[in-house]
Amino acid sequence: MPRLVEYEDMAPRAKAVVDGIAAARGIDPATINNVWKALARDPGVMEQFAAEMKAAFAPGKLDSLTKELIYLAISIANQCEYCIASHGTMARNKGMTDEMHEEFMRVVLAAQKGNKIAMAYRVPVDPAFDGA
Amino acid sequence: MPRLVEYEDMAPRAKAVVDGIAAARGIDPATINNVWKALARDPGVMEQFAAEMKAAFAPGKLDSLTKELIYLAISIANQCEYCIASHGTMARNKGMTDEMHEEFMRVVLAAQKGNKIAMAYRVPVDPAFDGA
Amino acid sequence: MPRLVEYEDMAPRAKAVVDGIAAARGIDPATINNVWKALARDPGVMEQFAAEMKAAFAPGKLDSLTKELIYLAISIANQCEYCIASHGTMARNKGMTDEMHEEFMRVVLAAQKGNKIAMAYRVPVDPAFDGA
Amino acid sequence: MPRLVEYEDMAPRAKAVVDGIAAARGIDPATINNVWKALARDPGVMEQFAAEMKAAFAPGKLDSLTKELIYLAISIANQCEYCIASHGTMARNKGMTDEMHEEFMRVVLAAQKGNKIAMAYRVPVDPAFDGA
Amino acid sequence: MPRLVEYEDMAPRAKAVVDGIAAARGIDPATINNVWKALARDPGVMEQFAAEMKAAFAPGKLDSLTKELIYLAISIANQCEYCIASHGTMARNKGMTDEMHEEFMRVVLAAQKGNKIAMAYRVPVDPAFDGA
Amino acid sequence: MPRLVEYEDMAPRAKAVVDGIAAARGIDPATINNVWKALARDPGVMEQFAAEMKAAFAPGKLDSLTKELIYLAISIANQCEYCIASHGTMARNKGMTDEMHEEFMRVVLAAQKGNKIAMAYRVPVDPAFDGA
Repeated sequence: MPRLVEYEDMAPRAKAVVDGIAAARGIDPATINNVWKALARDPGVMEQFAAEMKAAFAPGKLDSLTKELIYLAISIANQCEYCIASHGTMARNKGMTDEMHEEFMRVVLAAQKGNKIAMAYRVPVDPAFDGA
Repeated sequence: MPRLVEYEDMAPRAKAVVDGIAAARGIDPATINNVWKALARDPGVMEQFAAEMKAAFAPGKLDSLTKELIYLAISIANQCEYCIASHGTMARNKGMTDEMHEEFMRVVLAAQKGNKIAMAYRVPVDPAFDGA
Repeated sequence: MPRLVEYEDMAPRAKAVVDGIAAARGIDPATINNVWKALARDPGVMEQFAAEMKAAFAPGKLDSLTKELIYLAISIANQCEYCIASHGTMARNKGMTDEMHEEFMRVVLAAQKGNKIAMAYRVPVDPAFDGA
Repeated sequence: MPRLVEYEDMAPRAKAVVDGIAAARGIDPATINNVWKALARDPGVMEQFAAEMKAAFAPGKLDSLTKELIYLAISIANQCEYCIASHGTMARNKGMTDEMHEEFMRVVLAAQKGNKIAMAYRVPVDPAFDGA
Repeated sequence: MPRLVEYEDMAPRAKAVVDGIAAARGIDPATINNVWKALARDPGVMEQFAAEMKAAFAPGKLDSLTKELIYLAISIANQCEYCIASHGTMARNKGMTDEMHEEFMRVVLAAQKGNKIAMAYRVPVDPAFDGA
Repeated sequence: MPRLVEYEDMAPRAKAVVDGIAAARGIDPATINNVWKALARDPGVMEQFAAEMKAAFAPGKLDSLTKELIYLAISIANQCEYCIASHGTMARNKGMTDEMHEEFMRVVLAAQKGNKIAMAYRVPVDPAFDGA
């Protein structure tokens, strides 16, 4: 078992990060999920990641579910089991239906294939795409 | 230079695939983008990828721009330059503004960091996430 | 535990896919392996993957064991434990001996090293290789 | 341009490695391909890689073309352009026909998809595969 | 060509980031390297990355060259050509000799091999390593 | 469970490799860690990896802890749980403090971000970095 620090045992800087997340989610800090219990060992990294997540999911032009799907797509490409499980659950909680999941997976798998095709055939970028 | 086959030099099976794509996009088949010129060497793979792309981008519950962003996210995670250039251009054409691009990049980079944190600290999946 | 759907609980489209695989392998559909039980949630993705696998392993110029070794090589490069376990077993069933496994691993590891060397030293492609 | 060392400018240890490869291939050492010109800066790494490649491609139970296809599969999964170009050329030289290339790509792309499916659905390893 | 924004054309927020970096390095802001010219399109991402880089390379327990080698190792594993070129140059500027580069490459390549071996043989974590 | 071979059951070539490692570490060969028990199935690969590890960690210009951090960085980028657990433990044993771990993680995560930024924005290599 890797080292997880329970909320009650966290140092003040780590507790403050968890308090902020728990308040935003309306949950009991003691039920915070494992990634924060693991990061509690490195409070500087924890603070920076919490700030980055907050900025990434702040209300904006892209809706919250779209952002979860982008997060989940990256996690599948990177094969991160923890992130697939956690953000898959969050996407469900934010309204991803079975139909949407299947459409999502179709795009993910088509992209995977397109990526490998482009590399395997060493396809040069078309001039029309080159200003992107 | 990897081998690209121009439309006029393609075998009938490859031409048929390009004709279908060109008709759907309302473009001249001779201006088809490079990935199809490269795949023309392997018509079976080409037909399958064209069918998969068509199914992935068929109208459904997720809108077309959301699908482009998912495709682009996978391409960034996999570091495929061709796909980033081509689907970045397509996302722009489908309405991605500068503001949306910045929000998109924030989520992509937060996900990348979250993925590596979960692995580096070997974070076990929370029971609450385990049915996803 | 991620959601697996047992054969008896699958929807008709998913059952039909499993029936086809079971018939080809000469096995009881109830003993189908887990990847199909997981995919049963998304029958469209399942049908497409089953068709792609069938086409990939159809008799042709490359023999069946060679195809398993190629599949296994990709799975090791991508670090997919499920696929290493399942296609490692299939390769054994198709005749991979201990000696062949060791030769296979030597090539896999040499290729891994060659890939990283080419990137780390940013080696430009030789003109003699550029038409491939 | 990254630093490449031409044969005539190599230190004796690097020259000896190139001499060995050139003799085995029956070519002029001055025409050695770029990866060796790049590695010439680090002769210890160069010697080790040359020995590993020689052992990997020594005659054995797997034939030489099968080994090239395994090497090429790893290189596509890892998206190494240099290696795809060089070992794609070598596979052609060792007898890979267009038909074989298309079959090879079908297996490579099916494996890529299978890998991502197994991760995205977090498929547990079947007991039947667990002794591999 | 992807879109790069020259210093003189940057918006004030982007200019401020470049001014900070140029001051720390003692260089003319107009000679800033390309990654910042590319990021100038997304000033929020740019500010966050600049802050993260500054924190990562702030004086601490690990010396500056060690940090460059860690950065370079990640960049090789991820096969990022830009990062290998830029941080390879920076490592040279901070004192990496040819001898150190060769030692560094030996560890990088041994780690690559160890990583793939652990996955290919599905090696379970030893109890003695499990508290890390 | 993958097949692990206990020391007492190893063939002579595998035993000889373990004896060498155990002697260098001053431990009982029967307590050798799992990666060697797994590799015992393929003694040729085992011998080569043992030699490569020995060369990589031989005394030189980079100190032993720096080498462990480089190894650990590669393992995190490649998401190898076994290697993160084992070399994380070794880094601790060689003097990595909590403070150093946090600094290390900051550089690892900044590099990860830098890598993805360089790819996502398709940043061209600056002429000043191009001779590295």
